[in-house]
Amino acid sequence: MKHTYLMTPGPSPLAGPVKEALAKDIIHHRTDEFKKILQEAHQGLKYVFSTDNPVLILACSGTGAMEASVSNLLSRNDKALVIVGGKFGQRWKDICSSYGVETVCMEINWGTSPDPKEIERILNDSPDIKAVYTTLCETSTATVYDIKAIASITRDRDVLLIVDAISGLGQDVLKTDEWGVDVVVSGSQKGLMLPPGLSFISLNRKAEVALATSNLAKYYFSLKKALKSYQNDDTPYTPSVSLVVALNESLKIIKEDGLENRWKEFQKIAQATQDALKELGFSIFSKSPSFSVTAAAIEGIDTQAIVKKMRKEYGISIAGGQDALKGKIIRIAHMGYINSQDVIMCLSILEKVLADLGASIEIGSSLKAFQEAYYG
Amino acid sequence: MKHTYLMTPGPSPLAGPVKEALAKDIIHHRTDEFKKILQEAHQGLKYVFSTDNPVLILACSGTGAMEASVSNLLSRNDKALVIVGGKFGQRWKDICSSYGVETVCMEINWGTSPDPKEIERILNDSPDIKAVYTTLCETSTATVYDIKAIASITRDRDVLLIVDAISGLGQDVLKTDEWGVDVVVSGSQKGLMLPPGLSFISLNRKAEVALATSNLAKYYFSLKKALKSYQNDDTPYTPSVSLVVALNESLKIIKEDGLENRWKEFQKIAQATQDALKELGFSIFSKSPSFSVTAAAIEGIDTQAIVKKMRKEYGISIAGGQDALKGKIIRIAHMGYINSQDVIMCLSILEKVLADLGASIEIGSSLKAFQEAYYG
Repeated sequence: MKHTYLMTPGPSPLAGPVKEALAKDIIHHRTDEFKKILQEAHQGLKYVFSTDNPVLILACSGTGAMEASVSNLLSRNDKALVIVGGKFGQRWKDICSSYGVETVCMEINWGTSPDPKEIERILNDSPDIKAVYTTLCETSTATVYDIKAIASITRDRDVLLIVDAISGLGQDVLKTDEWGVDVVVSGSQKGLMLPPGLSFISLNRKAEVALATSNLAKYYFSLKKALKSYQNDDTPYTPSVSLVVALNESLKIIKEDGLENRWKEFQKIAQATQDALKELGFSIFSKSPSFSVTAAAIEGIDTQAIVKKMRKEYGISIAGGQDALKGKIIRIAHMGYINSQDVIMCLSILEKVLADLGASIEIGSSLKAFQEAYYG
Repeated sequence: MKHTYLMTPGPSPLAGPVKEALAKDIIHHRTDEFKKILQEAHQGLKYVFSTDNPVLILACSGTGAMEASVSNLLSRNDKALVIVGGKFGQRWKDICSSYGVETVCMEINWGTSPDPKEIERILNDSPDIKAVYTTLCETSTATVYDIKAIASITRDRDVLLIVDAISGLGQDVLKTDEWGVDVVVSGSQKGLMLPPGLSFISLNRKAEVALATSNLAKYYFSLKKALKSYQNDDTPYTPSVSLVVALNESLKIIKEDGLENRWKEFQKIAQATQDALKELGFSIFSKSPSFSVTAAAIEGIDTQAIVKKMRKEYGISIAGGQDALKGKIIRIAHMGYINSQDVIMCLSILEKVLADLGASIEIGSSLKAFQEAYYG
């Protein structure tokens, strides 16, 4: 009778119609039939990315698109500001270093969001900074950054703002064009309810201009070539055909729900999840909690034991902490295809596992807290 | 009643069990369950690559693995020999140029295979050449190269031999370790009966040593990191989980058939296909025809019209010529999940389309020729 449930911040569960699409016979990618599919995907992605600009589809996981947004926008010895408040901010720094891009690193405490004033100060002090690399939802700490405020600083300067929205897209509010974000990167296995293997990158006019002068090495990830193919609803290299076909199914779901409705729904789920976890003695780890994933710490219990027990004995996969946070937090995702019922089911098992581990909790208390918060 | 059939040299049709695997619920990639799946895939790939060395799995299409075998093995201003006898040889040259690698380009007529003596002469003349980049099956001309002879020249020199076996692997004979090939690159959507989106790269000891000194920029495609993860049946970045799960199904099929049996079977199919096409007035384009795909030219008929008519009216996708060969050849794949019955079905439609286009052919003649050759 054991079922398995994914409550991890990527991969997250596949939508039903996505699974059906994945099992379809493969079609050739240089045909009118596939061109139409790609065209539909391009349109749907614009909606989810809240942009009228091109959103390119790459056949790789999210890190590949992150790399592309460094290797295509900058040149050797250019200077970039990277904001490091977790594992994925650190990844921006590492990618820049790999390409000989000089980084000004704004280190912030894990679980906090960057102070826009500090970003402004750094940009004033170093007018030679060409790009700011940051994160919508820092998955490792379940923290959402104030991208709107950051964009209000970068948009009228000669600097690009590149946002890793790999885990945040679809749940955490992101108004790319309205706020003036230049580049947004995302992946398939989070809010888009697909298997991993696709990534996406939106480029506004300012970013397109930067493609022309970049002298860093690239081939497979050449965005200049990808953009040229995009104009013709094509790809420079063989695309992940089956994932693109399935993508259109998840885009349909998001369109039908409405992106803004989904943002509101995930906000409600996130806040109810926070209330529920507090009821069980957890503290919410982030000072600026994301709507995509909730991280919570607890005293006196190794959180890795909770994660392991939930997966092994009950089939429920939640995430633990990464790197410095290993053993210190649990992370429960509410993104993509995960809805409020899934979280309630997950909490019921979390309660059981905490009790098994000797914690003194009242069975049912977190579910009640969730319901009270969620139904208002 | 119209069915659709893929007879193109990638993507080629999906095996039945592969389709079922693709529709499965996604599992998390940092679990014992996925580690076991990856371990099985690593073992199975060694068998298909005819090697005891590691075969790394990358989440990208084949070009990404080609790029990785340049950016990880060479350094800026290194010199490489590239053999260009078609579109995919040209790709090696382009990738090298993107990375500031100097290329010695051995241009050969499209449809011919390189003369190993000429390669030996070039290596003797330029002892500073660090690597030879070539192709098992040059898909654009359906030509197989004599990798055994080339490896016999490179194996005892201080030079790496890197073979693009993207379309050839599984059909054209390739004995990686026995012949002394250092690096073999392949992709998922040809002989491996999967959708596009995965690529593979095998590295022998000599190649592993080269990883240490390469100074070209890389991050997502870092083979040093991939190799380190591989030792632990893990991946540095999120893998294409569903494709890896499906890969094990196709590896099972190849193992059950036996790789050598499949080589022999595709040889029979290739030779019967050649006979059949000659019967219809085609000439075989390649002087060294591959077992993976057959290219054939015909006088007085635009081959693009054949390809279009077969696809639009009968649902059968074959390929035309690329670049310089556009309109001049047709290409029929016999790789992966395509078997002799599929080719017979395809020939029957080809006959009908040729007749529709006004060619004077005898209906049934190519099928008979195929059967006679195939059943011996």
